[in-house]
Amino acid sequence: MEESHSTNVKPQNALIEVCFSPALLNAYHVTDKVVVVIDVFRASSAICTALGYGLSAIIPVASIDEALNYKNKGYITAAERNGEVVAGFDFGNSPFAFQQESLIGREVVLTTSNCTKAIHRVQQVEADTVMIGSFINMSALADKLAAMNKDVVLLCAGWKSHVSLEDSLCAGAIAAELLQRGMRSIDDGTTMSMELYESAKGNLREYLYRSSHHKRLGHLNLGHDLEYCLVPNQWNVVPVLSGHRLIPG
Amino acid sequence: MEESHSTNVKPQNALIEVCFSPALLNAYHVTDKVVVVIDVFRASSAICTALGYGLSAIIPVASIDEALNYKNKGYITAAERNGEVVAGFDFGNSPFAFQQESLIGREVVLTTSNCTKAIHRVQQVEADTVMIGSFINMSALADKLAAMNKDVVLLCAGWKSHVSLEDSLCAGAIAAELLQRGMRSIDDGTTMSMELYESAKGNLREYLYRSSHHKRLGHLNLGHDLEYCLVPNQWNVVPVLSGHRLIPG
Repeated sequence: MEESHSTNVKPQNALIEVCFSPALLNAYHVTDKVVVVIDVFRASSAICTALGYGLSAIIPVASIDEALNYKNKGYITAAERNGEVVAGFDFGNSPFAFQQESLIGREVVLTTSNCTKAIHRVQQVEADTVMIGSFINMSALADKLAAMNKDVVLLCAGWKSHVSLEDSLCAGAIAAELLQRGMRSIDDGTTMSMELYESAKGNLREYLYRSSHHKRLGHLNLGHDLEYCLVPNQWNVVPVLSGHRLIPG
Repeated sequence: MEESHSTNVKPQNALIEVCFSPALLNAYHVTDKVVVVIDVFRASSAICTALGYGLSAIIPVASIDEALNYKNKGYITAAERNGEVVAGFDFGNSPFAFQQESLIGREVVLTTSNCTKAIHRVQQVEADTVMIGSFINMSALADKLAAMNKDVVLLCAGWKSHVSLEDSLCAGAIAAELLQRGMRSIDDGTTMSMELYESAKGNLREYLYRSSHHKRLGHLNLGHDLEYCLVPNQWNVVPVLSGHRLIPG
C-alpha cells in the first residue's frame, strides 16, 4: 500500500455555471448547488440594499395575488410590473424606496416582473441554497461562496424568458471574482458572460445603453436607479433564502 | 386627401433576434418569423455540406427509433449521439461523411444529439419558415433572409438545454451580416452574440478551445471536422424545411 499524501491533496475546487434564464434551470441539477439569483435592474439590487440598510427580511412572492393577500394581513408590500409600481402597493422595486428609516428592522413583501418569479422557480427545483447577487454586493457574495466551496449556478433572471445583457454582465463579473478565489468553470455560459463583462467593464453604463432594458424602460426616467445598480460593492451583505424569507446570510 | 408619397416610404426593416436554446423558443412568437437553426459542431454544417454537395434532401428526425423505422424501410440513415456514430447506422454527423459520390441525388435521414431535436421543437411552435445556418453557408443565408425581409430568430441548438459558445458565435456572425444588409435588432441576445463574435473572429479556432464542446469531445479526435466547420462560405446553399424534408432553398 502506498504511503498516503493526503496533506498534499487539495479538495476538488467547486464549479461555477452561468444559466441565462430560469426557463433553462431544469438542466442544471441544482439539488447540491448554491443558486444565485441575479436581476440587476432592479430587484436583486433592491433586495441587497434593503437587507444592507437594515430591514429584517424580504418575503419574495411570485404573483400580485399573493402580495395582495399579505397586504390584507397588514404587511408592507412592494410590487413592480413592467418597470412601474403596481397600483395599490406601497412601492415598487426602486432600491431607493427601501432606504427609509421607518423600514429598519421590519420585513417587506416583494413581487416583481422577473426576480421573484426566478426565486419561485429555484424553490421548485429544490436548490441546496438560494442567494441574491448584484453588482452592489458582489465581493461579499464571492467571499461567502468561496468559503462554502459548493458548486454554484449564477442564474440570470432575464426578461420574460429572454436573456438580459445586464444580468449576463453581472454573472460574468461574479464568475470572475469566484475564479480569482480558486473556483473553476467548464461551461460555456460562464465563458460567454465573462467575455462580455471583460469587454464592458471599462464603461458599463455606456455599454448598457444598448441593452433592451434601457430601450424598454427609457421612458420611465429610471436613470438614477440604473446608475446606482451598477456601482459595485456598496453593501457588505448576502441575502439568503431561509424558508420563504430572504435574510442577511 | 394628401398626395401619396409611397415611393419614399421604405418598408419597416425586419428584426433579428438570437435565441440561445430551444428551451427558450416559446417566448419568441415565431408564427410569422423565419427560424434559423444553428448547430455548428456539427449537424448544421453537415446538412449544409450535404445539400451543397448534391444530396437531394436531409430528413431530420428527433429520435433513434424514428431513424430506425426509416432504416428498416431502406433509407440511408445517419445517427449521432454524444459526438459518436450510433451503432447500426450508416454514419453520424461528420460533414465529410456526406461527401460521397454515391449519395448525390439521394436523400438521407439524420438524427443528432441537439440539431434535429431543435428542428423538431421549431416544427412544434409552427414557425413560418425553418432554415439551417452555419459558418459554412452564412453569406448565402444572409442574402436570402435579407431578400425575404421577414423577422428572423437565430436559434442556437446548444447542448442539452445548455448554451454553447460555438453556436452563439455563429449567431453573432450571421446577425452582423444581416445588420449590414439593413435588418435591425433590439434584443439583448443579438447584442451578446455579436459582441462575442467581435471578440473571437480574429482567431475563432483558438477562442473555441475554451468551449465546453471541445472539452467534452476532445478525446474523439474530431479536430479535422471542427476546423472545417469554422471556415466561412464554403457552400452557396440554404437548407429550407419543406414538409419534413430539408431541401436546397
